[in-house]
Amino acid sequence: MPDLTSTANPRVKNLVRLRTRRHRDAAAVTVIEGHDELALALDAGVEPTEVYWAPDLVRSDALLARMPSARVFSVTREVFARIAYRESPDGWLAVAPAPGRPLDELDLGPDPLVLVAEGVEKPGNVGAMLRTAEACGVDAVVIATPERGGTDFANPNVVRASKGTVFAVPVASASTTEVLDWLDRRGIATLVTTPAGTTGLAGTDLTGPTALVIGTEATGVTDAWLDRADATVVIPMRGRVNSLNASIAAAVVLYEAVRQRG
Amino acid sequence: MPDLTSTANPRVKNLVRLRTRRHRDAAAVTVIEGHDELALALDAGVEPTEVYWAPDLVRSDALLARMPSARVFSVTREVFARIAYRESPDGWLAVAPAPGRPLDELDLGPDPLVLVAEGVEKPGNVGAMLRTAEACGVDAVVIATPERGGTDFANPNVVRASKGTVFAVPVASASTTEVLDWLDRRGIATLVTTPAGTTGLAGTDLTGPTALVIGTEATGVTDAWLDRADATVVIPMRGRVNSLNASIAAAVVLYEAVRQRG
Repeated sequence: MPDLTSTANPRVKNLVRLRTRRHRDAAAVTVIEGHDELALALDAGVEPTEVYWAPDLVRSDALLARMPSARVFSVTREVFARIAYRESPDGWLAVAPAPGRPLDELDLGPDPLVLVAEGVEKPGNVGAMLRTAEACGVDAVVIATPERGGTDFANPNVVRASKGTVFAVPVASASTTEVLDWLDRRGIATLVTTPAGTTGLAGTDLTGPTALVIGTEATGVTDAWLDRADATVVIPMRGRVNSLNASIAAAVVLYEAVRQRG
Repeated sequence: MPDLTSTANPRVKNLVRLRTRRHRDAAAVTVIEGHDELALALDAGVEPTEVYWAPDLVRSDALLARMPSARVFSVTREVFARIAYRESPDGWLAVAPAPGRPLDELDLGPDPLVLVAEGVEKPGNVGAMLRTAEACGVDAVVIATPERGGTDFANPNVVRASKGTVFAVPVASASTTEVLDWLDRRGIATLVTTPAGTTGLAGTDLTGPTALVIGTEATGVTDAWLDRADATVVIPMRGRVNSLNASIAAAVVLYEAVRQRG
């Protein structure tokens, strides 16, 4: 018999509560669903505290050996259907410490490269940016929010869209003012990408301590960034419509930094 | 009274049929829904043949003046709900000639830059690639399919995800063999992006007649491309997970070409 057979079990009820941000924030955890996503998170060094798996659904239980410190619960197919986020669950779900840390706890190298995205909230866009940032070896990804509050990196849709890279890249979220002050204190040049920029991307030196700042597709960055930017950078555009997705714009500037840094 | 008040009207039934690819292919048309998407298509020079608008839903009828050659039908809110693709329609829908042409009718400049994507089918990915390709001023975007058949550029979800750029960039779809032969005949160097590539991206000359070839995220390109490539190119990767979305990979190589071409 599986360990958990009733959807009335308090553990099941707690997992369902973790669908809301308030409960995830209070417990400082995230939920990782799916075999491949969990494997990628483990690759990135994540240590889940709890694992729920459905013997009736999984293809193999080999993943369990990679989580020696987790509490493991086998569950029935019915229980798994209750705790799963997906419509066709594959029988794997884990609870792990939430990604993200305070700005001042980000550990940066000597010539840091930081991606700052302001106001970017869609899990698909945040996830794509994290994947690119990881591939580019950035020191950190920071989401700045014009108002108070922060981005919910622990949103299971962000975890999924990022293919687990949300655990592999240092991430933080803070208000725009806090991020600007932090960059100032750390002596990091603030280069803001905007269609109204005065410097061409290839003509901008990205080899020193650099924050590349991207705004939303619809409205760009808020004025605070333009007021305090060390430079405003324009991505070349040769078409008539000239519409780039925010995560594509981030990739273009990040890969220019990779190119310059050799 | 609006022109069309009954969902039993033959025009309404025909529009509903256009939801299936077979009927769109037979009529060689696509369907553009939404004010902003339609405005972008018009910016790109599209000339709709029919326009359906719901006076009860639209904010303004100003768009009508931009479609002098279209047959215009006002419809009731109920009729619009029947013909709309979206859950919250804004009252604009048009039928226009399908984007896409045969390979041999693509009109290329003297040093063409072509994006070739093999097996990329998700409308979101195709749309993002088209937006980037348009911003980079490519000569054409070609979708190659390993088997027979072709990509459905007239899929309304592609039209939407491309923000109308599917009409602004010359596009074609053909089998992998046909595309390889076409590139050969046109004297266009075939540069295939693959993690197993032997040349670094920045060290590859992209200034001559160039096709940049991207495969799917899961399986890359088929062997036919690797067999016939003039060069295999690797995008720098510095992380541990190293996972790039296909449309991001396309953006990275396209913008390297833009940089080299000045």
